[in-house]
Formats: sequence, C-alpha cells, structure tokens
Amino acid sequence: MNESELKKLLEAVRDSEMSIDEACGKLKDLPYADLGFASVDHHRAVRTGYPEVIYGENKTPEQIGMIMSELAPKGGNIMATRCTAEMYLKVKEIVPEAVYFHKARIIALVQKEDTDSAGTVAVVTAGTSDIPVAEEAAVTSELMGAEVIRVYDVGVAGIHRLFARMKDIERADAVVAAAGMEGALASVLGGLVNVPVVAVPTSVGYGANLNGISALLSMLNSCANGVGVVNIDNGFGAGYLAALIAGKCSK
Amino acid sequence: MNESELKKLLEAVRDSEMSIDEACGKLKDLPYADLGFASVDHHRAVRTGYPEVIYGENKTPEQIGMIMSELAPKGGNIMATRCTAEMYLKVKEIVPEAVYFHKARIIALVQKEDTDSAGTVAVVTAGTSDIPVAEEAAVTSELMGAEVIRVYDVGVAGIHRLFARMKDIERADAVVAAAGMEGALASVLGGLVNVPVVAVPTSVGYGANLNGISALLSMLNSCANGVGVVNIDNGFGAGYLAALIAGKCSK
Amino acid sequence: MNESELKKLLEAVRDSEMSIDEACGKLKDLPYADLGFASVDHHRAVRTGYPEVIYGENKTPEQIGMIMSELAPKGGNIMATRCTAEMYLKVKEIVPEAVYFHKARIIALVQKEDTDSAGTVAVVTAGTSDIPVAEEAAVTSELMGAEVIRVYDVGVAGIHRLFARMKDIERADAVVAAAGMEGALASVLGGLVNVPVVAVPTSVGYGANLNGISALLSMLNSCANGVGVVNIDNGFGAGYLAALIAGKCSK
Amino acid sequence: MNESELKKLLEAVRDSEMSIDEACGKLKDLPYADLGFASVDHHRAVRTGYPEVIYGENKTPEQIGMIMSELAPKGGNIMATRCTAEMYLKVKEIVPEAVYFHKARIIALVQKEDTDSAGTVAVVTAGTSDIPVAEEAAVTSELMGAEVIRVYDVGVAGIHRLFARMKDIERADAVVAAAGMEGALASVLGGLVNVPVVAVPTSVGYGANLNGISALLSMLNSCANGVGVVNIDNGFGAGYLAALIAGKCSK
Amino acid sequence: MNESELKKLLEAVRDSEMSIDEACGKLKDLPYADLGFASVDHHRAVRTGYPEVIYGENKTPEQIGMIMSELAPKGGNIMATRCTAEMYLKVKEIVPEAVYFHKARIIALVQKEDTDSAGTVAVVTAGTSDIPVAEEAAVTSELMGAEVIRVYDVGVAGIHRLFARMKDIERADAVVAAAGMEGALASVLGGLVNVPVVAVPTSVGYGANLNGISALLSMLNSCANGVGVVNIDNGFGAGYLAALIAGKCSK
Amino acid sequence: MNESELKKLLEAVRDSEMSIDEACGKLKDLPYADLGFASVDHHRAVRTGYPEVIYGENKTPEQIGMIMSELAPKGGNIMATRCTAEMYLKVKEIVPEAVYFHKARIIALVQKEDTDSAGTVAVVTAGTSDIPVAEEAAVTSELMGAEVIRVYDVGVAGIHRLFARMKDIERADAVVAAAGMEGALASVLGGLVNVPVVAVPTSVGYGANLNGISALLSMLNSCANGVGVVNIDNGFGAGYLAALIAGKCSK
Amino acid sequence: MNESELKKLLEAVRDSEMSIDEACGKLKDLPYADLGFASVDHHRAVRTGYPEVIYGENKTPEQIGMIMSELAPKGGNIMATRCTAEMYLKVKEIVPEAVYFHKARIIALVQKEDTDSAGTVAVVTAGTSDIPVAEEAAVTSELMGAEVIRVYDVGVAGIHRLFARMKDIERADAVVAAAGMEGALASVLGGLVNVPVVAVPTSVGYGANLNGISALLSMLNSCANGVGVVNIDNGFGAGYLAALIAGKCSK
Amino acid sequence: MNESELKKLLEAVRDSEMSIDEACGKLKDLPYADLGFASVDHHRAVRTGYPEVIYGENKTPEQIGMIMSELAPKGGNIMATRCTAEMYLKVKEIVPEAVYFHKARIIALVQKEDTDSAGTVAVVTAGTSDIPVAEEAAVTSELMGAEVIRVYDVGVAGIHRLFARMKDIERADAVVAAAGMEGALASVLGGLVNVPVVAVPTSVGYGANLNGISALLSMLNSCANGVGVVNIDNGFGAGYLAALIAGKCSK
Repeated sequence: MNESELKKLLEAVRDSEMSIDEACGKLKDLPYADLGFASVDHHRAVRTGYPEVIYGENKTPEQIGMIMSELAPKGGNIMATRCTAEMYLKVKEIVPEAVYFHKARIIALVQKEDTDSAGTVAVVTAGTSDIPVAEEAAVTSELMGAEVIRVYDVGVAGIHRLFARMKDIERADAVVAAAGMEGALASVLGGLVNVPVVAVPTSVGYGANLNGISALLSMLNSCANGVGVVNIDNGFGAGYLAALIAGKCSK
Repeated sequence: MNESELKKLLEAVRDSEMSIDEACGKLKDLPYADLGFASVDHHRAVRTGYPEVIYGENKTPEQIGMIMSELAPKGGNIMATRCTAEMYLKVKEIVPEAVYFHKARIIALVQKEDTDSAGTVAVVTAGTSDIPVAEEAAVTSELMGAEVIRVYDVGVAGIHRLFARMKDIERADAVVAAAGMEGALASVLGGLVNVPVVAVPTSVGYGANLNGISALLSMLNSCANGVGVVNIDNGFGAGYLAALIAGKCSK
Repeated sequence: MNESELKKLLEAVRDSEMSIDEACGKLKDLPYADLGFASVDHHRAVRTGYPEVIYGENKTPEQIGMIMSELAPKGGNIMATRCTAEMYLKVKEIVPEAVYFHKARIIALVQKEDTDSAGTVAVVTAGTSDIPVAEEAAVTSELMGAEVIRVYDVGVAGIHRLFARMKDIERADAVVAAAGMEGALASVLGGLVNVPVVAVPTSVGYGANLNGISALLSMLNSCANGVGVVNIDNGFGAGYLAALIAGKCSK
Repeated sequence: MNESELKKLLEAVRDSEMSIDEACGKLKDLPYADLGFASVDHHRAVRTGYPEVIYGENKTPEQIGMIMSELAPKGGNIMATRCTAEMYLKVKEIVPEAVYFHKARIIALVQKEDTDSAGTVAVVTAGTSDIPVAEEAAVTSELMGAEVIRVYDVGVAGIHRLFARMKDIERADAVVAAAGMEGALASVLGGLVNVPVVAVPTSVGYGANLNGISALLSMLNSCANGVGVVNIDNGFGAGYLAALIAGKCSK
Repeated sequence: MNESELKKLLEAVRDSEMSIDEACGKLKDLPYADLGFASVDHHRAVRTGYPEVIYGENKTPEQIGMIMSELAPKGGNIMATRCTAEMYLKVKEIVPEAVYFHKARIIALVQKEDTDSAGTVAVVTAGTSDIPVAEEAAVTSELMGAEVIRVYDVGVAGIHRLFARMKDIERADAVVAAAGMEGALASVLGGLVNVPVVAVPTSVGYGANLNGISALLSMLNSCANGVGVVNIDNGFGAGYLAALIAGKCSK
Repeated sequence: MNESELKKLLEAVRDSEMSIDEACGKLKDLPYADLGFASVDHHRAVRTGYPEVIYGENKTPEQIGMIMSELAPKGGNIMATRCTAEMYLKVKEIVPEAVYFHKARIIALVQKEDTDSAGTVAVVTAGTSDIPVAEEAAVTSELMGAEVIRVYDVGVAGIHRLFARMKDIERADAVVAAAGMEGALASVLGGLVNVPVVAVPTSVGYGANLNGISALLSMLNSCANGVGVVNIDNGFGAGYLAALIAGKCSK
Repeated sequence: MNESELKKLLEAVRDSEMSIDEACGKLKDLPYADLGFASVDHHRAVRTGYPEVIYGENKTPEQIGMIMSELAPKGGNIMATRCTAEMYLKVKEIVPEAVYFHKARIIALVQKEDTDSAGTVAVVTAGTSDIPVAEEAAVTSELMGAEVIRVYDVGVAGIHRLFARMKDIERADAVVAAAGMEGALASVLGGLVNVPVVAVPTSVGYGANLNGISALLSMLNSCANGVGVVNIDNGFGAGYLAALIAGKCSK
Repeated sequence: MNESELKKLLEAVRDSEMSIDEACGKLKDLPYADLGFASVDHHRAVRTGYPEVIYGENKTPEQIGMIMSELAPKGGNIMATRCTAEMYLKVKEIVPEAVYFHKARIIALVQKEDTDSAGTVAVVTAGTSDIPVAEEAAVTSELMGAEVIRVYDVGVAGIHRLFARMKDIERADAVVAAAGMEGALASVLGGLVNVPVVAVPTSVGYGANLNGISALLSMLNSCANGVGVVNIDNGFGAGYLAALIAGKCSK
C-alpha cells in the first residue's frame, strides 16, 4: 500500500464510504511491510546515489544482464562484482552501455556521474598481489562518487616506500588498507593518519596465511585506533564503507 | 498505536476533525512496530503456555528475582536457567513461590500445570556426566507441558543398555539425545526411532573433545535422518524444541 | 529368521520334532539381528511412505540406477541427491520412469503421491545463491508428502522483504531456513514464527565464511528458541526433518 | 632536532660556522624520527581533543595513576579501560579528580568538555549481557565529544523491540552494534540505517559461540553494506571508530 | 528372557500350553536385549580379568565409593581414574581395601593378581611432565596383568638418552609413547621397535601446543608405521590398549 | 662397518697390526650408524616378511617402478599406495610382475605368500564410500600375511546391519573400523568386540565433516576402550597396525 | 633528496642564496623518506650481495621478465621463486641470461658469483617429497653465496639414516630442516647440532596434517633449543635466514 | 663405554685376553649410545658456556633446587624459567647462591661470567605488556654471554617511537622482536635491519588474538626476509636462538 492508496483509504473513511471497522481491518491485515516499512524504504532512499550491487560470483552473465536491465530504469549506477572479462562480453550483449573495470573485475552501468564532491578515499596496498581487491574497493568508491587516491605496493617490510607516499594518503577522508600475509599495513597506517581506516585482509600468501585468516586476525588485533575490518578479499565492502564515511565527512 | 487509538484516528478523519494529509503523516510517522508489529505480537501469542525464560548465567539473583516478579502477573510459567542453589535461596526471598530443580539448575515459578496432553519427550543420555544438560532439557519440556521419559547412561559403547530401554524411548513424540565425547548416541538413536531427534552435544570429555566441539561435529554429520542439533550444553534449547515438536504432534 | 521360519521352528517344537535344547540352541545361535531386530525393523516400518534415499555424490549413474531398480519393487518413492543433469540422462536409461528436479539436483522415482495431507513446510532462503540447497530441502519434503511454500531471497539485510512474506510463512507447520554468509535469517525467523525452525547453513560466501562454518555457528548460537540445525548445505536433511515434524503435526 | 635547532644549524651554515660536510653529516646522522617524523607528530596533533588511552587490563593501579599524572598536564581527556572499582579507589588516591564509569569499567580524567557538537553515535546491543562492552563504547565516544544514544536489549529474536527504537537510532551519524551469540544485529541494523555501522562482537554466549568467534564471523560475513568490524569485546575500539566517523560527519 | 525362561516357553509350546502365535508374539515382543544381547554379554565375558573402570573426573568420592562397593562382589579389579589424594581418603572410608596410586591419580580395588603372564608393556615418556599421564597408563596396564617397563624422560631433543634405554624397551610386546610439545617421540620409537606403539599425546607445553593438539597432530601424522593414537592425556586408554595387545601377544 | 669388518679390525689389533689408539680412533670416527645402528637394523630385521611400502601420491610411475626394481632382489613383498590404474600401466612396463588392486589403489609386487597364519583382521566400514580406504587397509593386511574379513556398509544409523555381521567380526584378532561423517562405528564396535580396534577416519562427507576431522575427533573421543586411531584416510596405516597386532596375537 | 641535493641546498644557504626559513621549510616538506630514510636505505645497502627476490606465484612471465630487466643493471643476483618450466621459457625470451633451477622452481639471473666464503648451510629433509621446498632453500642460500650441503630423505622413522649423515651436517654454520607430516626432524636435529636450525614445515602429507599445520606446530613446540621456524613451504625464507646466519658466522 | 673402557677392551684383544668373537659381541651388545653417541655428546660439548636450562612451570621449588644442586658441579650457568618470587625463596634455601630476575621470572645460578664478547642482541617489544617475555629472552641471552640492548614499547601504531631507537637496534648481531596483538613489529623490524630477527609472539591481547595465535600467524607470514619464529611467549627460546646467532657472528 503506497501513499496514494493510503490516502484513498482515508478519503473513503472521510467520505463515509468505508466504515471505521473495515478501514481498521484493512490496515491491520496489510502485509507487514506495507505501512510500517514504507518508512524503512523511505529512509533507505536517503542512500540514493549509491550504486545497486550485484554479487556476480555464482551468477550467469545472463542473470547479471537481466538484473541490470531491470534496475536500469531507476537511473542510478549499477555494478556487478567478481565478473570475468568473458562474463562481460555476454553481459554487454544484453546491456550494451555496460563497461568493464578489468583489474577490479567489475561490470558497471554508469548512469550518473557524481559531480559534487563526495569526499576522498585513499586505497593503499601492501603488495602488487593485493591490487585486484584494492581495485574492487577503488572502483566501488568511485561509483559512489568519491575521488580515489591509489597508493599501491607500499608494504611495511620496506616502510620507506609507505612514508614516501604519506602526503598523498593524508589528503583522504577515509583510508582503505588492503594487505595479505601478515596484514601489518593496517596497524602502521592506523597510527599515521587521523581518519578512519577500513582494513581489508586479502588471501594473498600461502601456508600459515590460512587463506587470509592471518591478515584478518592481524587487522582485528590492530594496536592502532580507528580501524574497522571487513571480510577477506571484500574489496567491495571496504570501498563501500570508506566512501560512505568519506561522503559524510565531505559534507 | 493500539487498535482503539487507530480507530480514534479513523473516526477523526471520518468526522473531518483531521485532514487526510495529517492522518497520512501520522500513520507514516508511527514508530515501526506500532501497527505492523501488533500483528507480530499477536502471532507470538499463540505460543502462550510456553514458559518465559531467563538466562541466568550472568545475572545476579536480585536481577532474576526482579524479572520474575515483573513477569509473574502474566500468569504463565517462568523459568531461569543455569542457576546455582545459592542463587535460588536469594531468588526465593524475592519470589517465595519459586521452586528449584537441582540437577537441572533451573529456578521456576510454576503458575500453570498443563493438564491437557502436550505430547511426550524422551530425554536420553550417553553417560551420567551428561545428566545436568539432560535435566535442563527435561525440566524445560515439563514446564512446557510435555510428559518426559528419562533414559540415562545408555551410551553406545555398551549398546545393549540402550536396546534394553528402546520400548520406553519409542513411546515419545520427540527424542532429546544428550551426549559428550564422540556423541554417537544421536546417530544410533536417529536410526532406531521414527520421530525427530533433537541432538544436544555436551562438553563432557577432555583433550580432543575440544569442550564439546567433537560431539557437536558428530551430531551435525549424523548419517541418520531426522536429527536437528542445538548448541553445546544447550539443554534448555533442546528441551524447548523437543516439546515444541511433541506439543504439535500430540494435537 | 523371519516370522514364518520362526513359526516353523515353534511348530517343530510343538510337534516334538525338535527338542527343547535344540530349539533353544538355534534361537541363541541366530545372528544378532534375526530375532531381536525383527522388532527394530518392525518399528522402522512405521516410517513407510518416507522415500528411500541414495546419496549420489560419489556414486556413478550406473550404481544409482541399479540401486533404484532394486528398491523400486517396494513401491515407495526413491530419491538420489546431489546428481547432475548428466547423471540423470544415464540413470534414465536404466530407470526410465525416473524424473529430475534440476534446481534441487535430485533424481527421483515417484511411485506414490501422498494425497492425504502430511503437513506444510515453508522453505525460506536469505539469498538467491542459497536456492540449490533450499530446493533440495523442498523437493525432499514434497517427496515425503508435505506441501511446500517457497519463500526465497528474503535475507535480513533488507528485512522488509521478509516481513512482506510472513503471512505465507506463518501457514507452515515447520520452517526450513537456508542461509549462508552470517546466517542471521534463522534467528530472525525463530523469533517470528511459533513452529520449529530447521536451520540449514549454506556454504555461500567467501573468506571468513569458512565454507559455511560462519553460518553454522550463527545458527547454533541463535538467540531464538525452537531452532534445530543440520549440516552445512544439507538440504536433504533439513527437508527430511521439517517434513517429519510437519507430518506429525498435521495428524 | 626540533625546528629551532634545525634553524640554528642552517644559520651556522649560512654564517660559515659549520662546513657543508659537517652539516650534511649531522643531518644524515640524526635519529630517524627527529626530522622526518616531526611531520608525523604534527599530523597526529590534528587528533587533539581525542582522549589519551591506557589499556588497564595488565596494569597495576599505581601504574595507571602514574601514567595519568604524567599525561594530565597536556590538558586533554585521559581514560583507562578495563578497570575494576577496586583499581579506581587506588587510582583516585593518586589522581583525585579521576572519575569512574562503573558499567563501562573506565577510569577517566575529564579535563575538557567538548561543547561544540562532535556528532551523534548510537550504541545498540542485542542483549543485556552485551551492556558492559556497549558502555565501554559509549563512554569512549562521549569522552571524544560525541552525543551518545543508548539502545539496549533489542536483539533480532524479538525484532519488534528493535523497530520500536529505530527512530532514535536513525538520528545517529554512526552506529555501534554490540552483540554476542549469533551477532545478527549488525546485519539487520546495516540494512536499516544509512550511516556506517561499527560492529563489535561480544564473547557473550557459550559452547559453539567459541568465546565470541561466532559473532565475529557473523559480522565479518554481514550481507549488509557499510559495516566495519572490531575485535571481540573491543568496546573502546568501536566507540573510538564511531566517534571518529561521527565527528567528521558532523563538521 | 534368560535361557531358563526361554526353555519354559519352548516347553509350553511343546506341551501345547501355548499356541504358536502366542509364542511367536512373545518372542517378537521381547525387549531388544533379552535374547540377542545375551549373546553380546557373553562375548564381553571373554574380557573378564580386565578391570572395571570408573572415570573419576566429575564424580564425588561418595559416588566412586558406592560404585566400587557395587562392583566389588564380581571379584575383579576395579579402578577409578583422575582421582586426587583427597578423594582417595573419602573413598577409603567406604572401601577400606582401596589403594591409591599417587602419580597415576588412580584409586584401585585390587582383588585379583594376574599371575600368569599377560605380556609386557613399555611406557616411555619424552619429559618428566608427561609422567602423570604415563603412570595412568602404566598402572592401568599393571591392573590388567601386564608387566610394565617404565622409561621416562628420554625425549628426542637428547636422543642419546632414548638409545641408552632401547634394550629395555625392546623387551616389550607393546609400547606406550607419551609426549607433549612436538610429540616426536612416537615417530622415533615407531621406527625403532617392531611392536605396536600406542601414542598418547599430553597437554604438556604452552602457546602453540594448543593444549595437546600439536602433539596429537604429530602422532597422527607419524611417518612411522604401526602407531595408533589415543586422546590427549588419555593415559588410561593408552594403557588399556597396550595391555590388550600385549596380553594377546603373550598367549 | 659390518660385522666382518669389525672382526678384521679386532684381528689387526690382536695381531698388533694396528695400535690401540688407531683402532680406538677408527671406532670413534665411524659414521654414527655404523656400529651402534647395526644393532638397530638387526632389530628391524625381525620385521622381515612385512612389505616394503612406497607412498605413491606424489611420485611418478617411473619413480615407483624404479624403486620397486631396486627393492625386488630382497625377495619380500613390495607395495605402492595411492596409485591410479594409469600409473599401474606404466609401472607394469618396468616391473611386469606387478599387480594392481583396483579398489585399494595399490600396486604390489607379491614375491612371498605367507602361508603360515599371521592372524585374522576384520575390516569394517560404515558406508560404501569408505570402501577405498578400507580396501587399502585390507590389501595391506593381506600383503602382511593376515587373513582379512571384509564387512562393509554396516553403519550405525541402521545398526541391525552391523549386528547381523557380528559373528564374522568376532573371529578377528584385530578390527579395522573405517568411517567418515560422524565416525560412530568405532565406538560401537569397540563396545562389542574384545580385541583391539584400529579406527581410521575417512574424509567421506561434506560441510561440518571438515574433510574427516569430525570422524577423527569422534574416534579419538571414543567412549569405548581398546581403540587406537590413525590419520584420516590412512587405510595403509590401519591395515599395517591391525596386521601387526593380529600377527602377534596369532603366534 | 639524495646527498648531492642536500649539499646543494646547504651550499645555497651558506651562499645566502636561500633563506633559513626557505631551507627549513624545504627540509620539513620533504617526503618522509627523503632524508630520514636515506639512512635506512644506507643500512640496507649492507645487504648488498643478497639477491633481489621476486615472488613468482601470481605473476605472469612477462611481469617477471620485466622486473628482472629493470633490476639487472644494479649488478646483483636476481631470483624469482615458484616458477614453472613453462614460465621460464617465456622469461628467457625477455632475459636470455636467466637460468632455471628445476627442482627449486627458481628462475635466476646470476650476475655475481660470491667467491669469498659466505659460510656453509646444510639443507636436510625428512622425505623425498620435501625436496622441492628444500631445493628452494638450497638454491636461495647458494645465490646468497653460501656453500650448501644437501642431506635428503633422512626422516626420523628410520633414524639411522640421519645419523649416517651427521658428519656432513655438522660441518654447517646453519641448518635448514624441511619436513612435513609430523615434522619431528627439526627437534631431533636441534638436539644434535650446535648451530641454529631453521625449521621449514612442508605441506607434505594428508588428512590431519592440515596442509602443513601439523608440522608447523611440531616445529614451534620443539623441545630442542636453537630452532627458528618459517612459514609452511617457505623454502626461500628458510634458505635466506640460514644464509644470513651462516654468512655472519663465517666472518 | 667411555674411551678408557674402549681402550681396555682393545688392549685385552691385543693381549689375547679376549677373543675376537667376545670383543665383537661386546661391542655389538653395547647400549646404543655408548660408543656412537660419545661422539654426539662430544659435539654437544662445543656448546659449553651455554646455560643448563630447567623449565620451571610444572616443577616444585624443591625439584628445581635439587636439579640445580646436581648440575652445579659442572661449573656452568644454570637457569630455571617461569619461576615466581615465591618459588625463588624456597630454591634459595637449597641453592643459596641462586639469584632471581624478577621481570624475567628466571632463577639463575651464575657461575661463569662470559667476559669475552659473545655478540650483541637487541630485544625489542611492541608494548609494555610484552616485557615479561622480552626479559626472559634478554636474561637468557645475557646468561649465554651476550650483551643485550633493551628497546621496549616501540610498537608500530606509533612508529616514530621505533625509528627514534633504530640507532641502538642496529648495533645488534641479532634482534629479538616480541609482540602480541597483531605482531606487526617483526615485519617492520625485518625490513629495517640487516641481521636475523627472532620473532616471539606473545599472548598479549584478547578476543581474536586467540591467546597469541594472531601474532604467531603474523610473524610466520612476515613479508620481510630473515625472520625466524619461536613459540608463543617463548622468551627463553628466542633469547637462546638470538644469542646462538650473535655468538657465532661475533667470532
């Protein structure tokens, strides 16, 4: 029951076309969401401008293309994560305007360029192998309207590389730190910047890295303050949270 | 906003004392639960007769007593789990009618004896050390109105003990299987009875039992059908689920 | 020794064709199961109407077809889980009447339609990726005679979707909740319905989902009452348990 | 080497009182931090207003009191976490102005009341047992100048309780979600609000909660976007990150 | 139904005092164990001479004393494991003949000295801290009639100590290897002797020994052949299995 | 230095052809094993008759063939485990007498048939999927000269199947219990037989079976006595240990 | 800012071409590393002679060839680990002088043969399957100028093999112990040599070896002193650390 | 059989007082260690100067005192780790010259001051809570003759603290890095120094630090080269290995 339907019901009551009891019953018999959750959806609408997201891992290109086509008329940006170049070719047949971010493995339908500043996000990686996750974060942030500063391959074993780039990093409203192996980057960064750090552990490494658990635990146990952690390899989640923070900060 | 308030609002609309827009706004601005969730609570009411439950582990006797006092006027049974005898003595000062089930470590305020049959639950244990968990299950089932058949210390290493008691077990509408160590009881029982088995792993054992994880995994991997598992040492949960099933079955 | 053989033995005793000692010896020398376990089998017979189940994962189509052929004369339903479409084509050559449930990955030989009501099961999923597990549960329940209500893609991150479907879910005698990732659906559902919830964690997700362990632990630790858990991705087990409960309830 | 010392050195060069080689050598032989890291400390200064934090777990009251005394002249707020009431009594003898937040287990020396708005943080818990962790978060946020909205005991098993409080929660610039057991609160909240959610798993529960690992994994696998996770029971870290975000947002 | 009752039934059939159908029904309705499991118990009787065992961990001295008193008339040895000296003093009041093996933490009622050789067991430990577990094994083996050779503190980090004792160890029919930390003793021993090695990991160590898991995994992965493993700290189980093997071997 | 060389040295001393110091030096300078470990090897010789074993998993057929060729002249049996049929075809080109045990995945060169009884081993499995591991055990035992009784697919969920075969199992001197999923077979068997049980967990199952860890933990925590456990899927190790025990027992 | 640039700045100050304030500002505005970390890099230069290392696992041959080409002019040795023979063929097209160490899976550009002794490293393995990891260690040590003694397949289950090679091992300044399964080699070696032992667990094994975790835990819990552990299968790290120690020792 | 006994045997052979066969037999019948392992012990003697070590955790003061008394006549240093001040008071009654290192929890009998340089070890900690472990390492190194540089509380969250102390750390021949929580210190240090780093994870932290597992995994996955890891909280092992390396390096 949307607002106009609700108004019609109330008008019917006002005009005595519907009894109080009948109206009361109809309102009580509504599916749960219809009234109470109009409010919920209303609040969600504040998030307009954020992209619709499709988790592409277990979906066929046809499914992705179809969902994109359905969402397109809303006019916002739409992105599908974890997509291969092969998948893109097939999605493009269905949604010709779709573009592909190769390193980020993201297919996107960009319908809206956020021109007003939505803040700045720095995406920092420890190694070159962390770049796919970092790019997923970076492109996500960009699709949410943020400016993104990419600072890659500045792991703590050669800490002078990180320091050489600190001036860049300090410009950001939020920092994404992507690192595998021992994941120390998040702690070092957390101690150097004065904005929130979103730490994303990557599964880069082998053996006792336990597919990313090692970096995950490091980041959760960070001795630095102001660090929040997302799931292993969850570049999208990191980019989303960082852009959410940066967008707020820049306003 | 309860029903009478809703009716007043509608009457105000009918009597043109409130504009359509004002009424529409009020309905939209309601706290989430006020309308939609009246429905939820209504459905919960079907569960009347089931006891109110207080998890006593981290609460003081004073807190438990106070909560019991508050819930008492509703007239249903109230139970607090994981309570020591010492706690009971103090709760009794606040709620004199409270009784204590020693083995089950449950304090209960029994205000309603379910006289109509709510089904039969068999509570079976592998060893004597599993009895506290089993009693928590058994007393919970009883407070929910079920008849309980206790069959203790019939672990699979001496499987003739179990078979000697099968006639009793087969009378039940649902079976609780409580076992620590290797937890094999659930699988064997699952193969012998034709009613749902609620498996509750206990932390009984040492070393590679990993505080109950061993039994938990065994039960989850049961090669028998019709077995559902609850948390380690969660006698209450097992008893609740079994009585819920048995109560349905007996109707 | 089946019943007729037992009778013959007793007749021989009655007719003095066999001495007491000889009869006594024969009875004692019987393989374990022959007498005592006739009783076991008798009780199992109560479960007639439930399908025979073949776990297809590590079997060849030939093996599955052969087992189906052997079981067919009993007249009940037979199902093989975790079968691909390729396997079905080969099984069909051996058992031409076999049908294939694509989403559920189940090959079935349906010889008996349960026309009398065996209760209603709602199968609910958090996401679309949980559907294969959910379908395994749904088809299993249906082959056991239950009516199944499918409610898919109503995860808690968009909780209004779940509420919009609660009217449907509340019709069920038992609910299957299939969810991966954080598995929160089981807890939320457990708090909304007043029937047993069978929670089946799925391996959907990545990284810290640990192939389903995350959802499994969530479900075991559910703060809602009346929830029983089965193994990760065990749609069959969930459907079986739910139909077992629902079948009982509906009688 | 601070700035005035650096200037003196350069003046000595200018005045030919020091040779180029000698100056070059001195600059190269400086302890690492003396020049390059003056810059680091400068940037850290931006964080002025944030409290100095002492992790009290393994410290004696004497140590805590002494550190507080040393930090006091800087004029900012100072807080010590994980302190018992007994510890406070002894700390108070050394630092008489120190106050104690009982539920939060925090001793604080409040020297500065942030009167200008530093944003609003909602601290939400699933159960009453999560309150100590939540209070640690709430008091930390308050000491950083944030307004804090406390919404306790609104776990998802009785989800109408949460909805009844959503109006309050939606006022916040950042939300802390503290939950043990299955930790589903973070996902549900993440789907309802449009600000960052800082999820803090608590060790509340038993058995398969694995001392908080269950809630931790749930939160990391949240299907909702915009959720960052901190260590188990790390109320301080959650409160710090939330206030950091809220402070930025409110400017 | 024991043998005499069975004969009576058959006589009644023979004498036509009972119909075939009635007899058939009675035999089918027998409790499971009554006939079939007489056979089971009969086979168990072969194990006579082995001690009755009481796991003392969670039992009161009164319970232990009572169980011992009940078992005593059977005439065999009775042992209670994991008992403190304090417990012994109280058990002794109930069972005055009970003796206490201090290092092994075993209370025993020795009613039968096995004079005929039941084989030889060598019990070997890596360190001195493994001795309590080793003694539990050794005393168990002795109570089962085995001769026990104790070889303690011969861990592989000083492997000459082990070699100096090989002549003794080689006399055994079965070897118990008790070791904590890295548990390498089992592999080295397995390569040196030509009899079965029963490996018992101990929880001796700290940190990454994970309460014995490290030694357990080592022993399970032993590159030596002929090694069987029991639970962490399960001295009783190791001694029982070794004596079972040795007893067989010596016959 | 073998015995004849040692004698020559001593003769040289006796004949004063070598000084005491020179002899002493030579003896001290010997490689470690040359003297002391002749003894070790001598003892190992007692194990003659046991097959030489090659772990085939990571080896090429060429390597396996070559090792077999080298070991062949010793005259004993040689076996290579975890070999595919493809590998066998290539090994056969190098070692034409080699035979292949398909289900056991073992290539063997049988040069010696143990005609004198080396005891009897029963190999029991819970399901049909456990058969490859069981066959590896069975063939290993046979190659060590044991008679093997195969009892497959008698898991505890249909416990009458196990009882129906107990007469066969009871003939054995040692029992191998192979089971995946919840691994309950080992405990049940351990309670029914009076000989050692070698439990081998298999990786059969999915989800919470954790690739065999579930069955492994079950077996380690067995409440039955006389059970020793080997590594997951280690059919060879189980068969070796069982035959070692049985061989001893039968003498 | 390198030294010559720094001198130019100081000369400008001396020559009054630059004001004190301007110079001070420039020095403070330098990127972090430019001054302070010149010192860091200076110290790193001491490590000259050590090879540059490229982790080849996730890189394309093109990337590896390109990085090698860039590093080549520095004149030191360059190595890429975890490279297949196929990768080598493509790298060779870019860097024709590159050589391939097959067993070690290392592509190297050897531009400098360390003729002066950089110490001796013994690389010891438990089995033949550990050789790839061991070769990675050995070649790494050699590329760092160390003499390497290879002692393979001397696992502790046949400990005489190890002793027969001790004379060789004792020549080393540092020992690498590579072992999978139970990893006992490190402890035994640690007790026999008087130089540091670098233990590298390998993932060799199956089941409860947990992909190398078993050997890792064993090595961390070694009861021998003087043992340091690196990551599972990290042959490079072990060879690097051992050569670092040996190089120091030999000076 | 020591050297003089061996000579006597050879003299008896030379003097024809003992036959060749008898001598041969005696040599072969020697306990394993008597000849071959004299060599082992001889090599161990090279380690003279290193302290004898007693692991005090599970020992009584009486046991420690007694062992110290027995070892004292050898003249070397003796140390007992993990001892409380209370234990020291009792040990002192038995060994009056024993001294106590409070922070290191070490009781030592110092009989030999290593005046000749045995190298320099830097012991670095991330926080103040890591100091007990660090002191155990430092005192161990000192008792082995090394000079120790203590650099405490320089964790990476405030990395300028570490850089301010690098000049000190760079003087060392080996570095011990002790850190809990995320353990990032080892990686950062590993990248800054050109000597071996011995990383010792501490159990400092809570929640997802998993009692030190988090720091352990971080250190094992260090992206820096030249890092070897010891067990959690194993200060002794770290100090021993570092001093072993430093001692070698300084010669």
